[in-house]
Order: sequence, then C-alpha cells, then structure tokens
Amino acid sequence: MSSLGEVGEFGLIAAIALATRVGAGVEIGIGDDAALVAVSSGKVLITTDMAVEGVHFRTDWSSAYEIGRKCAAANLADIAAMGGVTRALVVAFAAPPQLSTEWALQLTQGINDECAVEGASVVGGDTVRGEIITISITAIGEVSPAISAPVTRTGAQVGDIVYLLGQTGASAAGLEILSRGLGIAPGLIALHKVPKPPYESAREFAALGATSLCDVSDGLVADLGHIADASGVTIDIDVDALDISELFAAAHELEVDPFEWALGGGEDHAFTGTLPPQAVPPAGARAIGIVCPRGEGAVVSAGIALGHLGHDHFSA
Amino acid sequence: MSSLGEVGEFGLIAAIALATRVGAGVEIGIGDDAALVAVSSGKVLITTDMAVEGVHFRTDWSSAYEIGRKCAAANLADIAAMGGVTRALVVAFAAPPQLSTEWALQLTQGINDECAVEGASVVGGDTVRGEIITISITAIGEVSPAISAPVTRTGAQVGDIVYLLGQTGASAAGLEILSRGLGIAPGLIALHKVPKPPYESAREFAALGATSLCDVSDGLVADLGHIADASGVTIDIDVDALDISELFAAAHELEVDPFEWALGGGEDHAFTGTLPPQAVPPAGARAIGIVCPRGEGAVVSAGIALGHLGHDHFSA
Repeated sequence: MSSLGEVGEFGLIAAIALATRVGAGVEIGIGDDAALVAVSSGKVLITTDMAVEGVHFRTDWSSAYEIGRKCAAANLADIAAMGGVTRALVVAFAAPPQLSTEWALQLTQGINDECAVEGASVVGGDTVRGEIITISITAIGEVSPAISAPVTRTGAQVGDIVYLLGQTGASAAGLEILSRGLGIAPGLIALHKVPKPPYESAREFAALGATSLCDVSDGLVADLGHIADASGVTIDIDVDALDISELFAAAHELEVDPFEWALGGGEDHAFTGTLPPQAVPPAGARAIGIVCPRGEGAVVSAGIALGHLGHDHFSA
Repeated sequence: MSSLGEVGEFGLIAAIALATRVGAGVEIGIGDDAALVAVSSGKVLITTDMAVEGVHFRTDWSSAYEIGRKCAAANLADIAAMGGVTRALVVAFAAPPQLSTEWALQLTQGINDECAVEGASVVGGDTVRGEIITISITAIGEVSPAISAPVTRTGAQVGDIVYLLGQTGASAAGLEILSRGLGIAPGLIALHKVPKPPYESAREFAALGATSLCDVSDGLVADLGHIADASGVTIDIDVDALDISELFAAAHELEVDPFEWALGGGEDHAFTGTLPPQAVPPAGARAIGIVCPRGEGAVVSAGIALGHLGHDHFSA
C-alpha cells in the first residue's frame, strides 16, 4: 500500500478528486485556485470546524471513514442549526508522509458519504505535511427557502418553550466505554464514532418559527447557555423530561450518573432551540424547559444553576 | 500574561471577536453556529489553506502577527487568482493550552490587517487544543464585476503570451538566509515572513481578457505546469526575462543560482497567467514566455524541460 510521501501531494489530490461526488451548484470543483458554487439566495452561511488526532479522535478507535463522517457532520450540523442546508465543503488536511494513501481516501469517502445525506459537495481543499493528523473542514450553505432569515442564538423570548431534537449523551457514553476498554453498548460506541444529527428536523424546527436554534456540540447545558447568554434570558430545564433510556444500562454498568452524559456530554450534534408557546413542535421534538427572565445563572433546573457542565477545549 | 488554558476557549473567542473588524456584507459574524455573508453575484469562490508550525512557519523566525498576515495572504491570493475579491474569512486554529493569549491575538491582528487590504472580514472560526500550532483559513469571495466568469487554469491557448505579476524567488531566498542564520538582505527576509501579493493587478489582468491565471505558491515552474497541464499546452519560458536583480547579491553571497529561487521557490504569492497576443498587459506585468502546442514537458525553456523544479508538500 502506498504512502502519502510516495504518491505525493498532486497524486493524492488527483485521487481525491476522482473519489469525490460533484453535486448541484458546483460550477468549478477541485483543482484550481478556488472553487465556484452557485447559491440562489445571494447569501452564504459559513462555518468551520477543526479536529486534531489524539484530541478529537483516535485512529485506533475510529476508522478513517468514521472520522470523515464525524468531521463532516460537525459542519453540516452547524449549517442546519441556522436553518440552512450545506451546498459545499472544503477540507484542509495535515498528515505525516508515512500515512497510507488508503487512509486518506477512506477519510474522503466518509466526508463524501456524510455530505450526500445533505446533498452537499466537496469542492476543494488543501493537503499538507504535519506530524499529527489534523482535519479542518469549512462548510458553505444557504438558508432554507422556507425561512426568511437564519435562526441565531439571540432570539429566545421569555415564555418560549425549549426543545431538544435528537438525543444527547450517547457520544460521551460511547467515549467513556471506549476509554475503559469495555465491549458493552455497541450502539453508544457507534454514535460516538459517527453521530446522526437530525438535520432535516432542525430545518423543520426553524420553519415553524423558532426564536433560537443551536447545535449541541459542547454539551446540552453549555449550548443552552450560549442561547441564554446571547438572548439575555435564563433557561429553566426539567431534567426529568430528558430521555436517558438508551444511556441507562451503560450508566449503571459504569456506575456513572446518566444525566452527566445527557446534560454535559458533547459531540452528539443534536439540536436545541426555542419556539413560542403557541407553536406546534415538529415530530420528534422533546419539550425540556422554558425561557425565563434573566436571573442568576444562564441555565437552571429547579432553581439550581447548571453552569459547571460543558466543555472548554483548552481546559486540561 | 495569560495562557489560552487560563482564559479558556470562550474567553479567547470573545477577545478575538472584539479585535475583529467587521466589513460590508457581513450579516451575522463571529459567535453563532455559522456566519452569514451577502454576495451580490449569487456565486461564491471558496479556497482553503492550512499552515503547520515547523512545516510552514517557525515561531522563532516569524512573529504571530507576521504568521497571521502570511496565512491570510495565501487565501486572499487564491481568490484573486480567479479574478475574484475576498469577502469573508473563517479561521480554524489549534494551539497548546500554554500558548499565550497575546500570541493568539497578535495572530488575529495579522489576519485582520491582511484582510483589510482586500476589504474582507473575519466572520468566524474554531479554536481547539493541539500540541502543534495549526492555522487553517478558508476564504469566501466572489468574481469581480469586471469579468463575467472566474479565470481558471484551463484556458491557455497556443500563441498566448505568458506574464508574471510580481516577483518570484524572494520568499525562498529569505528562507535560505534565515536557515543559514545570516543577517543579510532584510528585504528578502521580510518578503519570506509577509508576502505582498499584487491582488489588484491579478484582477486587472483577469479583466483584460486573461485566458488563464494562477497564484504562484508552489514555485513559478510548478504553477506554470499546472496551467500547461490543465490547458493541454506546453509553456516555453525565457528565463532571461525574469527579474533577478533583487536576488542577485544574496545569491552571490550564498553561492546559490538565483534562478533556482526565481523558478522553483514557493510562497511568493505572485501571479502568473496568459493573455492573447493582441491584448495589452497591465502595468507591471512582465512577459516571460509563450504558449506552444503540447510537446514533451509541461514547461520548457530553450527546449529543455523544467519539470524538476517546484514543491511537493509530502516530499522529504
């Protein structure tokens, strides 16, 4: 099997271009100084997300294909969290020259397959040498035609209902199971390796008049905190409304509080946001709290601030 | 002085947002899941470029500010090389927790100042933990209103004149001077640390009817080779037409052939491209060759193929 050093940068780019599906709106794809993508709205949503070997993923736990799907999902979810749909991705990739070309192509395949879920295309990238595998993806999208403007974190109003789309905690649970070297709960491990963001539900939620919407990547309490801070409100959540049924058996086995996973675990790429009380939520949305006037603490439950949960990327 | 680990991810993002200039067209900037930028044309140019500590830059040779300017320039130049102008940048940044916050803010300032040259705005990013500083920038632009379509590498026609905009070789010369620990030629060292791409000249060249255009980042011969291969032609260059006057004294001192720098040195972010023979070149463009029917070799001079020059990022 050839290494990146053997096929060289331009050989790798040619192989990636061949392996890459080109979808609608791509007028110039991989291979020039820049790509050209048509967006009907004239307004572009942009987000970027970087993953570093040993920090965000381990090559002994996840396959290149799984890492590709997860890295792409993190970006696609951020665009969906604005009520948008991704049109194009660019991928910057650092790797040591001894890495196998097959690994890089499997990564590409994973990125492509996750893009296909949203109808997006990989349109360019950069491949460079580095001791540690680093994957930096930028997604370009546009707001769904069903809404007039993107849904931000700033619009939550007192009295709005807080909803959760998708499950939280599975990724953190899967990570802990892997960390302890256990063979239980393959479903949770699979969701740690490849999250399943409910992209379409996020856009439905936006179209129903969402006043705020956010991807749950730092942990539910942390991301609700972003909405609360940006909107100048306090969010009061009912922890009993969270569905921990899938976490329960593993939490019992590991002697962990499943609510630590559900409230504090990151990387699930679920969505959370707010709707006015009269709005009808989409199927699958779970009401988990209410928006209150700003008090002490961004996110509370039964009067207790939940600010200690969540993830800071520079903390030890 | 605080470290990234002390201020934390969200403290750093807040400081970066404060330090960031917001220009025209930015409807949603730093701080949400994605940014929103208006593009009048409805078509978006996208490019990405990653720089790794120890491979693309050294923190003992270049300041954070200089590294920021150079990383931004690499992206802005790629957009200009399509005849475009950059509207927005997103910056993904990996760094160890012990890095000083001041370093990250100086990097931000450098990125901002280079963006200001082109009227672009930093609209978002990602900050993550990593042992090695890694900077991945994606630029979003649109084609200049003066041209109907982006200028790619594919359109060079037999008989077209090949032009160089800007100088090549200075970055490679500056790098070699630094590598040998010499104190000569501060102008070349400065151009290695912060290139000065002639962005506006590239757009003028495109508007004059360029049949091809490319950023010179891999080295002049390598990048002309990209045009030759993409267009199915051979490019015959006259090496005596290259201006090596600024390289001459340093080359003599280091006992190096200055044409090795001018033909093979990367990272100058000059531009090269082709115009039909009847077209009037813009001021400052230097005619360096002619487009010939495809023969043996992509780039030749006086009948000799120059294919051995140029840079492969995975080679030793």
